[in-house]
Amino acid sequence: MNEKAKKEFNTFREIIENYLSKSIDVVYPEKIYNSMRYSLLGGGKRLRPVIAMAVAKLFNVSDEIILPAACAIEMLHCQSLIHDDLPAMDNDDYRRGKLSNHKAFDEATAILAGDAFLSYAPKLIIEKTPKSVDPKLILDVLKEFFIAAGVDGIISGQIVDLDSENKNITDKTLNYLYEYKTAKLFKLAVRTGAIFGNANDNQINALTQYAENYGHAFQIYDDILDVTSTLEKLGKTPGKDTNAGKSTYVSMFGLKKAKEQTSFLCKQACDILKENKINSLILEGVADDIVKGIEECS
Amino acid sequence: MNEKAKKEFNTFREIIENYLSKSIDVVYPEKIYNSMRYSLLGGGKRLRPVIAMAVAKLFNVSDEIILPAACAIEMLHCQSLIHDDLPAMDNDDYRRGKLSNHKAFDEATAILAGDAFLSYAPKLIIEKTPKSVDPKLILDVLKEFFIAAGVDGIISGQIVDLDSENKNITDKTLNYLYEYKTAKLFKLAVRTGAIFGNANDNQINALTQYAENYGHAFQIYDDILDVTSTLEKLGKTPGKDTNAGKSTYVSMFGLKKAKEQTSFLCKQACDILKENKINSLILEGVADDIVKGIEECS
Repeated sequence: MNEKAKKEFNTFREIIENYLSKSIDVVYPEKIYNSMRYSLLGGGKRLRPVIAMAVAKLFNVSDEIILPAACAIEMLHCQSLIHDDLPAMDNDDYRRGKLSNHKAFDEATAILAGDAFLSYAPKLIIEKTPKSVDPKLILDVLKEFFIAAGVDGIISGQIVDLDSENKNITDKTLNYLYEYKTAKLFKLAVRTGAIFGNANDNQINALTQYAENYGHAFQIYDDILDVTSTLEKLGKTPGKDTNAGKSTYVSMFGLKKAKEQTSFLCKQACDILKENKINSLILEGVADDIVKGIEECS
Repeated sequence: MNEKAKKEFNTFREIIENYLSKSIDVVYPEKIYNSMRYSLLGGGKRLRPVIAMAVAKLFNVSDEIILPAACAIEMLHCQSLIHDDLPAMDNDDYRRGKLSNHKAFDEATAILAGDAFLSYAPKLIIEKTPKSVDPKLILDVLKEFFIAAGVDGIISGQIVDLDSENKNITDKTLNYLYEYKTAKLFKLAVRTGAIFGNANDNQINALTQYAENYGHAFQIYDDILDVTSTLEKLGKTPGKDTNAGKSTYVSMFGLKKAKEQTSFLCKQACDILKENKINSLILEGVADDIVKGIEECS
């Protein structure tokens, strides 16, 4: 990402961080709010909400309009991490460099904190999106949110992921996993910005394709880091895919091919933007960052 | 409940049952859909959606308009039961006379099925409520849904419930539990019908007070059954409150006082309706049924 893009990214990130930090007050019963804040405010690149803001900016959507929905997307991401880390799921003790929610609190609280975000996030959109926005657009954005959050999105991704442990899976299943576990939230991010911006169908399709390619690249890169990085750098346990008997692009096609595919997908993501005359430093920048990250992996 | 009310109740219940049975198609990955269907279509009185329909009828809201939201409320209820039964929560192996979701499937699937309902239900409201309905009303109904589903509703009820195990709790905490764990969903049911019916503030307040009184009575009655009934009759394990070291109205004030309080609350619920000239055979009937049920308990 070039300096200008990085500056813009950091500005958006700060705005989001600030909004998130004020989004949950601690009242009775304090435990559930503390647990939600623990995971939501525990770091994270804020990539999905930054992407939503970047797309909103393309269509001159104000921060006031995009922020509640952008932060709701981050809450959804946070929900999925809390539940994925549970003992009954991926059983991971660390997340973002600290104890995962069920380790810092307890299992019941972690389940309930995840559940809570699934209502808290869409309620934020309903309550905080300015009244000047057409309610139909808000319903469209909410619908996208529920597609990504539910059986048409990350839930089915996680079910297939768990069912794939210690099995040989096909290319098709691997592709399904990347699509449903990862790309869906990036699609949600770009589409949310585009819907509030009254983007036309061509623009929405192009941005969706960008998110699909970028999302797949992002996940293969994550798989690459799982075998090449450390707990310190990752903030979560490395090697966990291998330990859990999970098939990844790396385990199925090898590290070299995984790197090539990641770069190819990032290039394709950026080409789609160019072809459709969508100029966003941030959207290009986050794809570039993966390409650069790949080069540094060994 | 008199015969006329019973007939109407059963008609509504059949309509709901039919709608629910068609609301979830089984597609890939089949396991999550099967798990959702297992718990949703596994019996249940459909009390909350019937109440939503009964209120809708008071304001001449069509079945077509109320049904998606009424069924979404049943899905939310179902979600709360699946997650409450989990080993990390109430650890109950039976529900509605059959194995609970995590026993029939597995823990991960039960967590994900619950999560899935939290998106599936509001998405149903957005997709299936007729386009003729003012989108602002749909947003109002969704907001009520998220209040009941989240930290302003059943989530906080469950957190306080779990934290109260093996402790002496105050009247105030007990009241909080009944309000947040139980009354909130009945409030959601009446308010959903009233919002779609463009009810005025007095009517909404009266119905909300009805639901509050009825909800508390419903929960105390449930606590009474927990000490007086059998697995066969209940469809879930009896004596589980005592075994889990939970304080209830019965354990704190005795069976006699619990029965009196339940009858008092039911009478109060019906009085509020009368005072506000709200004539609903079903709303009165479900309160009467609790009073009659109490008389048969020993």
